[in-house]
Amino acid sequence: MVAALAASPEAPLLLREDRDGVASLTLNRGATRNALSLALMEALQGALDAIGADPAVRVVVLKGAGPAFCAGHDLKEMRSDRDHESIDAIFKACSRMMIAIIRLPQPVIAQVHGVATAAGCQLVATCDLAVASGDARFATPGVDIGLFCSTPMVALSRAVPRKAALEMLLLGEPIGAAEALRIGLVNRVVPGDELVAATFALARVIAEKPRRVVALGKAAYARQGELGLEEAYAYTADVMARNMMMEEAAEGIDAFLQKRAPRWPA
Amino acid sequence: MVAALAASPEAPLLLREDRDGVASLTLNRGATRNALSLALMEALQGALDAIGADPAVRVVVLKGAGPAFCAGHDLKEMRSDRDHESIDAIFKACSRMMIAIIRLPQPVIAQVHGVATAAGCQLVATCDLAVASGDARFATPGVDIGLFCSTPMVALSRAVPRKAALEMLLLGEPIGAAEALRIGLVNRVVPGDELVAATFALARVIAEKPRRVVALGKAAYARQGELGLEEAYAYTADVMARNMMMEEAAEGIDAFLQKRAPRWPA
Amino acid sequence: MVAALAASPEAPLLLREDRDGVASLTLNRGATRNALSLALMEALQGALDAIGADPAVRVVVLKGAGPAFCAGHDLKEMRSDRDHESIDAIFKACSRMMIAIIRLPQPVIAQVHGVATAAGCQLVATCDLAVASGDARFATPGVDIGLFCSTPMVALSRAVPRKAALEMLLLGEPIGAAEALRIGLVNRVVPGDELVAATFALARVIAEKPRRVVALGKAAYARQGELGLEEAYAYTADVMARNMMMEEAAEGIDAFLQKRAPRWPA
Repeated sequence: MVAALAASPEAPLLLREDRDGVASLTLNRGATRNALSLALMEALQGALDAIGADPAVRVVVLKGAGPAFCAGHDLKEMRSDRDHESIDAIFKACSRMMIAIIRLPQPVIAQVHGVATAAGCQLVATCDLAVASGDARFATPGVDIGLFCSTPMVALSRAVPRKAALEMLLLGEPIGAAEALRIGLVNRVVPGDELVAATFALARVIAEKPRRVVALGKAAYARQGELGLEEAYAYTADVMARNMMMEEAAEGIDAFLQKRAPRWPA
Repeated sequence: MVAALAASPEAPLLLREDRDGVASLTLNRGATRNALSLALMEALQGALDAIGADPAVRVVVLKGAGPAFCAGHDLKEMRSDRDHESIDAIFKACSRMMIAIIRLPQPVIAQVHGVATAAGCQLVATCDLAVASGDARFATPGVDIGLFCSTPMVALSRAVPRKAALEMLLLGEPIGAAEALRIGLVNRVVPGDELVAATFALARVIAEKPRRVVALGKAAYARQGELGLEEAYAYTADVMARNMMMEEAAEGIDAFLQKRAPRWPA
Repeated sequence: MVAALAASPEAPLLLREDRDGVASLTLNRGATRNALSLALMEALQGALDAIGADPAVRVVVLKGAGPAFCAGHDLKEMRSDRDHESIDAIFKACSRMMIAIIRLPQPVIAQVHGVATAAGCQLVATCDLAVASGDARFATPGVDIGLFCSTPMVALSRAVPRKAALEMLLLGEPIGAAEALRIGLVNRVVPGDELVAATFALARVIAEKPRRVVALGKAAYARQGELGLEEAYAYTADVMARNMMMEEAAEGIDAFLQKRAPRWPA
């Protein structure tokens, strides 16, 4: 199933294709290197909201059509829309969408080719996992257009070490895939002609995991990370005790002890 | 001195051996890859409590008997013990023990061979330092038995970058020693036949440091890490001013200025 | 312009040289490996305060005269000054100066050769960026003189992974430039004879960026890092909306869309 998820039928802003529990979302404004217009962000928000409520989806792959993953905000739109209120709405919508990726029950994997800049780099940093092709480049170049990448830094600074984040933010220069791997911005780098297959294979591994347990774990990860040590342990010890009461834990542990494959509930 | 620290004399759950200021604690359930039964966790908690009050111990080495470091919780015990209250007690005991390692005045070094999975991987992430043999493997595979590694993530997410932690937690797949070194989960990787000597040598370096100063520094590290920048500096500046009033600082600085070896108090 | 910024004309404690928007501050107590006496810290604090109010300065390079970057506090002074109040004043002054680097509107780059130890290593960790020569060595060896590096750990633990920070703090042993790069303590390592040119070139890249936008971004980085995710996004979305109202954003985006170089305001 391929579904166009936004306005114009001849040029859908976002494509969704579901296969084997994997929902692939394709930013489909290739001519603008998938610039995040307000309409595209709203389409992505809508798709995430729908996926969050769809138990058939086990994992999401986020990618870009055309020569790039995503070049960030739509600067033309932003400059034509100069009152504070509408600008404010753009950044609020963008931040809401980034938080939605983190709050989504399903893991989200960025599949990155070409450039991922500004809010595009932020998307990579925000996703749970990221696979990059060898030609991918990452940058937070807002400083060079007088608009510092202040929202992207929220995701970037939580993904990579301080000096690496500040270098990207202050210099605005692109880093390659190998450097992105080194600093922890992506999980894997593969040759360009293997990117789609490698990302889908990774997604399929997660798609086979028990759905509710993955959702519980992803939510716990985000929440415990904002707590002090004692609070984090009190919270997660409770999460595990409740997890242990779920049928998935009973089935999973029994299967493990009996050396057989588990049969997960839907 | 080798002392068996738990119940049955023919199969002590935990061994303690003290030499030259280094207390080595050996998880001694090799047949179960040192699964952390409640009894073993209680034995470890008791040993840590005793060591914390024992000024003769300057550093702790934590290791496993048999083919593995530690494979995590005792799943058989957990499945036979299905009421919420007793399950809750297991995770509370485990979290209390992890926090005890962080609160212990003495540094704790994990000496890792074979597998370190789930709560075993959490032990490695929790220890102050870790030395691994080249064959060591690390995983948080709870997701594959329907029981997400939610308490292990507290330690893991504070030791390695976000993408690396999420990959281990969501995929459940083991990483090797070299990758563990790369992401910061261990400090050093050595050939298997050098593991014991290398870890003991590292422990001995710390054992020669002034005891009260190490304890003060370890406690300060944990506390300042949970504070904002201004608070962290206010707190540590005060720690340093008080440290400077200790006889260790007087002796250490004088020895340094006089180019002689310091004589530390006990 | 080279200006001596402290007391004695024959031996200024701190040198400042401004060129092309880059203010170079040189710790000038080479005979003591630039030990941070209270007077030197006060000179550095004064220089930072002046630079913070000087829009002609776009970026700061911090370096050391003689064979080393900086060997930390002045131990002779500290030992001759043994009442709690004056010791307290030293650590408060040091912490205030470190925080001033982080709060300074302009980015600060550490140019590191030779040793950077204790508060010297803290300076490197505190700066926004760091370039090291291949011979540079970094250590937090306070434990070996009975004075744990408790204030340095605030900066170190926010720059490098937990295990790496604890290893440096507990062992006190120096790490080389390559290891410092690997753990994220420095951004780049260059041959010693290229250090000055490489650091200045990096500084010049930042000096060409729009001043007020760099200042806004640097401040936002520090502040958002202490907030939870939702708060951090609410804060930075507001920062970006306000940034978008600045003439720099208008000029920068227009220049980008028109494929011309931007003309930044002063």
